[in-house]
Amino acid sequence: MPVQRPSIPKGTRDFLPFEMVRRNFIFETIRGIFQLYGYQPIETPAMEHLSSLMGKYGEEGDKLLFKILNSGDFLDSSTPLPTSVSSKELALKISEKGLRYDLTVPLARFVVQHQNDLVFPFKRYQIQPVWRADRPQKGRYREFFQCDVDAIGSDSLLYEAELIRIVDDIFCKLGIKVLIRLNNRKILAGIAESLGDASKLTDLTIALDKTDKIGSEKVNEELSQKGFSEEAIGRLQPLLQLEGKISHKFDILTEFLKDSITGLKGLEEMNQVRERLKSLDLTNKFDFDLRLARGLNYYTGTIIEVKALDAEMGSICGGGRYDNLTGIFGLPGVSGVGISFGADRIYDVMNELDLFPQTITTTTKALFVNFGEKEERYCNSLLKALRAEGLAAEMYPDQAKMKKQMDYANRKNIPWVVLIGENEMKTGKLTIKDMLTGEQNEMTIQEFTGILKK
Amino acid sequence: MPVQRPSIPKGTRDFLPFEMVRRNFIFETIRGIFQLYGYQPIETPAMEHLSSLMGKYGEEGDKLLFKILNSGDFLDSSTPLPTSVSSKELALKISEKGLRYDLTVPLARFVVQHQNDLVFPFKRYQIQPVWRADRPQKGRYREFFQCDVDAIGSDSLLYEAELIRIVDDIFCKLGIKVLIRLNNRKILAGIAESLGDASKLTDLTIALDKTDKIGSEKVNEELSQKGFSEEAIGRLQPLLQLEGKISHKFDILTEFLKDSITGLKGLEEMNQVRERLKSLDLTNKFDFDLRLARGLNYYTGTIIEVKALDAEMGSICGGGRYDNLTGIFGLPGVSGVGISFGADRIYDVMNELDLFPQTITTTTKALFVNFGEKEERYCNSLLKALRAEGLAAEMYPDQAKMKKQMDYANRKNIPWVVLIGENEMKTGKLTIKDMLTGEQNEMTIQEFTGILKK
Repeated sequence: MPVQRPSIPKGTRDFLPFEMVRRNFIFETIRGIFQLYGYQPIETPAMEHLSSLMGKYGEEGDKLLFKILNSGDFLDSSTPLPTSVSSKELALKISEKGLRYDLTVPLARFVVQHQNDLVFPFKRYQIQPVWRADRPQKGRYREFFQCDVDAIGSDSLLYEAELIRIVDDIFCKLGIKVLIRLNNRKILAGIAESLGDASKLTDLTIALDKTDKIGSEKVNEELSQKGFSEEAIGRLQPLLQLEGKISHKFDILTEFLKDSITGLKGLEEMNQVRERLKSLDLTNKFDFDLRLARGLNYYTGTIIEVKALDAEMGSICGGGRYDNLTGIFGLPGVSGVGISFGADRIYDVMNELDLFPQTITTTTKALFVNFGEKEERYCNSLLKALRAEGLAAEMYPDQAKMKKQMDYANRKNIPWVVLIGENEMKTGKLTIKDMLTGEQNEMTIQEFTGILKK
Repeated sequence: MPVQRPSIPKGTRDFLPFEMVRRNFIFETIRGIFQLYGYQPIETPAMEHLSSLMGKYGEEGDKLLFKILNSGDFLDSSTPLPTSVSSKELALKISEKGLRYDLTVPLARFVVQHQNDLVFPFKRYQIQPVWRADRPQKGRYREFFQCDVDAIGSDSLLYEAELIRIVDDIFCKLGIKVLIRLNNRKILAGIAESLGDASKLTDLTIALDKTDKIGSEKVNEELSQKGFSEEAIGRLQPLLQLEGKISHKFDILTEFLKDSITGLKGLEEMNQVRERLKSLDLTNKFDFDLRLARGLNYYTGTIIEVKALDAEMGSICGGGRYDNLTGIFGLPGVSGVGISFGADRIYDVMNELDLFPQTITTTTKALFVNFGEKEERYCNSLLKALRAEGLAAEMYPDQAKMKKQMDYANRKNIPWVVLIGENEMKTGKLTIKDMLTGEQNEMTIQEFTGILKK
């Protein structure tokens, strides 16, 4: 066979041990806190029926789905392909499965499919990779991990507060200072309604979202192009740059939304969430930010987005409430709320800010130098004793030169080297070399175990 | 949008919380022991270039690869498709990526690609799903997890012994009694050589493997059909049913292989592995079994296969030594040895034998009954106190009827329910209901924490 230069598909990554321990630190922290709040793990297959995925993420999303070629002889030889078939038509003909694009649609499918086996409210978390055929760029990958946590089957705002508390806990534990931005889709809908055209909600939110970047003048031009009247745009101005205390924002909005039942409902929800959060004693700040819109259209209530304060990075966590996610799979009227942590971006932020603890490592605590067969046999019981105490230890595989064996310990950052030769086998003691100081000491296996356990 | 009846692709599975905790118990046990022996985690992408995968698993394997449709407008419209294109030809034209089929070929690719960043011998483990377009049947899935552990870059037989010790440790910890079968590819090659035709190694191993199922007479017929001479078949007979002590097998084989350098080398390796294992004091039995062949052709030395003694199940773990796995990716002469644990089969065996500890659960320890807003606010600090001690606790999301809230606790197997009403808020004590006995007691949060920690 010809020799191949090894590489992986663009936008995908290998993870080396030093990256794995850091990633696992993030996953374990997130998982641990999810569980403290009573969320339970599920997993779904990497592949879903394309029919479950298509049409759920907009036209652009459909294009970004990785499609899997049907197995076997997927072309029906009795009906040959039309010569002018397009890629899109052909794809639908020869592909029935796709890789999951997020964890939300699979969750909706899962809840409907297993509804009789679940206890509602169903509190689940799910940590798995997702795949998108996006153009790869810095911080954007074609395979990346999402850590989702959702409560399904209750419209209690307690869950909004609980999830925000989880956000606070997780970022405290990871050491990332964040700002938690909150908004409510009903408020945005109410604003569109009050401006005279509820159908223009999307145009409105897109424009609001740009205020920071392009300024209110350009935003007004855009609104005008989208067909908002001069009068409507005029009335909108106080909302565009709504700053200051939350209570101030509430006052202005209560007046603005006084004729919109939806808008006032949203404001009431926001108020309740805020009241709950006040009694929760969060470490990180939260803010009510009218410009927060979030892209996906399935949100119907509270929306949440989290940004790291000390790093240049987009949102590292976000989510919200959706009232009819399971409807498309035949189970209407089930309300849920959830958030998703972007593990890859969190990783980048922690790396940039040097937040990973020095202590996390999967390296062994001790390398036993290999002096030959007899010594190797003698060391077996010592290795066994250490491992029985939960202490990782290994023996160099052959009687190589001392320099080579020490080099192995050094390059792997193994902190202790154990030397067992003729003398040690006689005395029953271990000669231990501290790889940091270079110091050597004789001790018993019990003494060494004690040191390693510290 | 039309309502869809939810389902997942055949051969794939959802995992519910009760399954997840059991699966995680297996993964954590395996991972923990891998780490005790100095193996470090890596991960590779779900997708590899098809060119990295094709031709590595035989013709049948190529067919079982899940291929991913190229993104975007994958048909080159300037060169229309020939009308008589076959599925195979078309697939190669419109698909450049495939889902990984195992963790061994990705490991080889990884080692070559990252050789300058790795410390050799490179001891790695990898726990990830793999995908095969196999016909689904009981115990065979299209997505399943492999737990691989390999030592790369050393030909020391210490690693064979270490891996077998890992097998022994893991199955002890999981509570599965196993038989560890060993053989050596060089011995099989030596036998083929001694019979006069080294090229017939594959035919020979296939036939040997069938002795148990079809009996030696039928095996002899098959060997004859494959072109083995009567004389060769006659000489082979004592080997077909080689039973008894390992030392007896060695005696017979030493005589049989006396003219085959390869065969004697294999016997010497097997002897060294056996000597090492004798000093390791394993709990499970190991046996030298000449009929063990293992399908994949990349093995060149020791081969290992593990079966559960008390369950009807194929091999639950297997592996061996390969001398040139990385050669195809441009790095010849690197020897490695590894084994793979089949998590899905191990799960099935543990379920069948009822081996999962009763204690593994991700359910919360305590449900706080929701009596209303005031009580909810009061309970926040209690929930916080429990979680700060690492104790999972949750509050019911709204002031539902007591029966409904108790039902939730019961169905989720939550062992304790906390009742905080007017009275408790006055006294500062908690009323705790033991859901197993139905007993109710008043106590402080410290006392309750003490109970939960037991």
